Amino acid sequence: MISKVLVANRGEIAVRIIRACREMNIETVAIYSTADKDSLHVKLADEAVCIGKPLPRDSYLNIESIITAAVLTGADAIHPGFGFLSENAKFARICRECNIKFIGPTPEMIELMGDKARARQMMIEADVPVVPGSEGTIDTAQDARVLAKCIGYPVILKAVAGGGGRGMRIVWNESEIEMAFNTARNEALSAFGDGSMYLEKYIVEPRHIEFQILGDAYGNVVHLGERDCSLQRRHQKVIEEAPSPCISPALRKKMGEAAIRAAKAVKYENAGTIEFILDKDRNFFFIEMNTRIQVEHPVTEMITGIDLIREQIRIASGERLQFTNKDIQIKGHAIECRINAENPKLNFRPCAGKIVELHLPGGRGVRVDTAIYPGYSVPPTYDSMLAKIIAYGDTREEALSIMRRALAEAVIEGIDTNIDFQYDLIHTDAFNEGYFDTSFIEKNLDSILGEE
Amino acid sequence: MISKVLVANRGEIAVRIIRACREMNIETVAIYSTADKDSLHVKLADEAVCIGKPLPRDSYLNIESIITAAVLTGADAIHPGFGFLSENAKFARICRECNIKFIGPTPEMIELMGDKARARQMMIEADVPVVPGSEGTIDTAQDARVLAKCIGYPVILKAVAGGGGRGMRIVWNESEIEMAFNTARNEALSAFGDGSMYLEKYIVEPRHIEFQILGDAYGNVVHLGERDCSLQRRHQKVIEEAPSPCISPALRKKMGEAAIRAAKAVKYENAGTIEFILDKDRNFFFIEMNTRIQVEHPVTEMITGIDLIREQIRIASGERLQFTNKDIQIKGHAIECRINAENPKLNFRPCAGKIVELHLPGGRGVRVDTAIYPGYSVPPTYDSMLAKIIAYGDTREEALSIMRRALAEAVIEGIDTNIDFQYDLIHTDAFNEGYFDTSFIEKNLDSILGEE
Repeated sequence: MISKVLVANRGEIAVRIIRACREMNIETVAIYSTADKDSLHVKLADEAVCIGKPLPRDSYLNIESIITAAVLTGADAIHPGFGFLSENAKFARICRECNIKFIGPTPEMIELMGDKARARQMMIEADVPVVPGSEGTIDTAQDARVLAKCIGYPVILKAVAGGGGRGMRIVWNESEIEMAFNTARNEALSAFGDGSMYLEKYIVEPRHIEFQILGDAYGNVVHLGERDCSLQRRHQKVIEEAPSPCISPALRKKMGEAAIRAAKAVKYENAGTIEFILDKDRNFFFIEMNTRIQVEHPVTEMITGIDLIREQIRIASGERLQFTNKDIQIKGHAIECRINAENPKLNFRPCAGKIVELHLPGGRGVRVDTAIYPGYSVPPTYDSMLAKIIAYGDTREEALSIMRRALAEAVIEGIDTNIDFQYDLIHTDAFNEGYFDTSFIEKNLDSILGEE
Repeated sequence: MISKVLVANRGEIAVRIIRACREMNIETVAIYSTADKDSLHVKLADEAVCIGKPLPRDSYLNIESIITAAVLTGADAIHPGFGFLSENAKFARICRECNIKFIGPTPEMIELMGDKARARQMMIEADVPVVPGSEGTIDTAQDARVLAKCIGYPVILKAVAGGGGRGMRIVWNESEIEMAFNTARNEALSAFGDGSMYLEKYIVEPRHIEFQILGDAYGNVVHLGERDCSLQRRHQKVIEEAPSPCISPALRKKMGEAAIRAAKAVKYENAGTIEFILDKDRNFFFIEMNTRIQVEHPVTEMITGIDLIREQIRIASGERLQFTNKDIQIKGHAIECRINAENPKLNFRPCAGKIVELHLPGGRGVRVDTAIYPGYSVPPTYDSMLAKIIAYGDTREEALSIMRRALAEAVIEGIDTNIDFQYDLIHTDAFNEGYFDTSFIEKNLDSILGEE
């Protein structure tokens, strides 16, 4: 059994892990950079070790310092949280070599899922749908035409060396494909010196649906239902909810089974997330697997009653899962709003500074995961997320009414935040109706900001 | 429908009601005394009216001022919370006369349940067990002997005019009854000038078990399971939990049915609580009905998922209950610790003053209902309750582990609190095993305080 956990992270996720450990009677060691000496995770842990200067590479990414801290404090396990070293196979491997339990999957699984081409191939073999596309590159417009016909329009042509939209073309029908291929390849050639192209089905107005997975060391894998994370801005999730307002029980069953096949294909251990994209016709495609706990894990905890951090620790201790998918009941609805230190009206510019006044919402149906407190100075060095406000109710409508009053009540003064933006976002018709896709925020930004 | 509620209370229950109203899109009016001008309920309500000086009789008990505030602000309903005017039939009657909905039962029901003798008689007629005892007074030692034999020992003799233990005797067997009756009567005569005595079954090591009831105007009544409030100090509840660790499903069904009979006997409308005493052999007896929402209502909300304040407002609006007892599922376990401004080491002396530092626990499984904030000055005039910390988990064990870490994390500086006392109390063997009665705290005070 694990008796002392070093938490290799900061902010709210470090606090979240320390709380779970305390509930399990496990001692905790916080690590912190010099910028974080007054942080809540430092105050709440049983011990705390300063591991370096503010820049992540000098502290929260400094494997040597972290391992040293673990050895010196006698920690027998490390929880990496999310971000930083959480998906770093080298770190997981060094933990293993030092006989410290890494609370997460094996380095081999992290590596495998980090290699998108290998992961895609493995999913195909496991009968998990992937976005249809070319195997490898396409050499001629004629090849593109044949493949596109087979896949069905619209398709997207992408330069292998591409980026920033260059060498990329969405093609809506066969009459456009030849010209699109040639211009995209020329663009790629002149921009990157490489004309290699590949082709994929273009998913129109997709939703981001991910399934939470738990696997133990004995081959048991369960899914805990989906999270809908379609409200994003520049690929950063803004609001997450569970269950998804667009997933029927039948589709949940089908996608859940695919998620379990995906996890079993790699004999996955610990908590992980299978990310899918869902098209307008409710076809779903594997995108990637996240081999760590995620920011949005609380919404799954609320609707299942399962403590995911506790399960991570149990699994890393070598325990068996104590439930099967038949035991997991999805009850109620949960919505999470990420509260960030940023100014939505100035292109979401992050900001730092001292919190001079703070009122976090509480009461029935409200969970707040945060590491901020009155007088806390938000350092400029790290992620801008300040808090996660989670509303839980019997129905989506109830959860939404609780989130509305929770955001109306929240006060953070001294720094810019996106509280008002989140308040306006949850009041849009699209959000109220549950009908939105991953481009919703970008397409409607001016109207959400009231600048139309 | 109700569109604007005046909240005739202060502190956390006022905040609780304002939050529920906001979630229902109902406007709110706070009232406050001059001592409460900086209170959270004043900040959170849509409007606020100062109704008088600090003393309750000048403000929160001043019916005229409160009704005037309601009329001036156009409130069409008043929620009385608990304490203050919540069980004042006159107030409920004046509300009705002024065409303002009183969110609670009718004045007639309040009056009926406030008359303990009438309520007892009504319960006997409704086949709800009451503590066996004399009907009216007992005139001779011989009458006492006959009745005690019939009821069974131990019994308790009480002076009708009694108080403070004078004129009271617990009698364990027949050989003692004659002398006990005579000495108790003489004591009562000399202390109160009145020797009238009555006799009741003496319940040994009782537990306090209460059932939450909801009734609508159409005769529908449901119960929402029990709360165990046996941990008390001087008849003030200290910790409450739901479900009770000592109630089996069969007993819950039996007591729940009795609670429904009790409520139906008075055609009860709105939220109410049927209080029972439970003896060591699991016999239960009606004590009284509380005709208002209670401090400890959140534990019931956690295990049923039902918002009791919302239901109160719906019922007062004339809506039907939307569920029957078959629909109500009890899931998980909830524990509430009352955090008071008091010093347990100085005989729980209440205190007032400014809160200079505050960290309230959060995260998974923790609900905090409070009206305090950093910099808030606790006035000396009112009840000493600062906050309710509620822990919810799948099992009692899990809820307890969450409460342990929540209390360990809580920081309130600047005033004395009972946080450490609560922490020590939940760590006693008796609490961990769920085996305690209403005298537990008093009997074990020194050991809980570490002063043995």
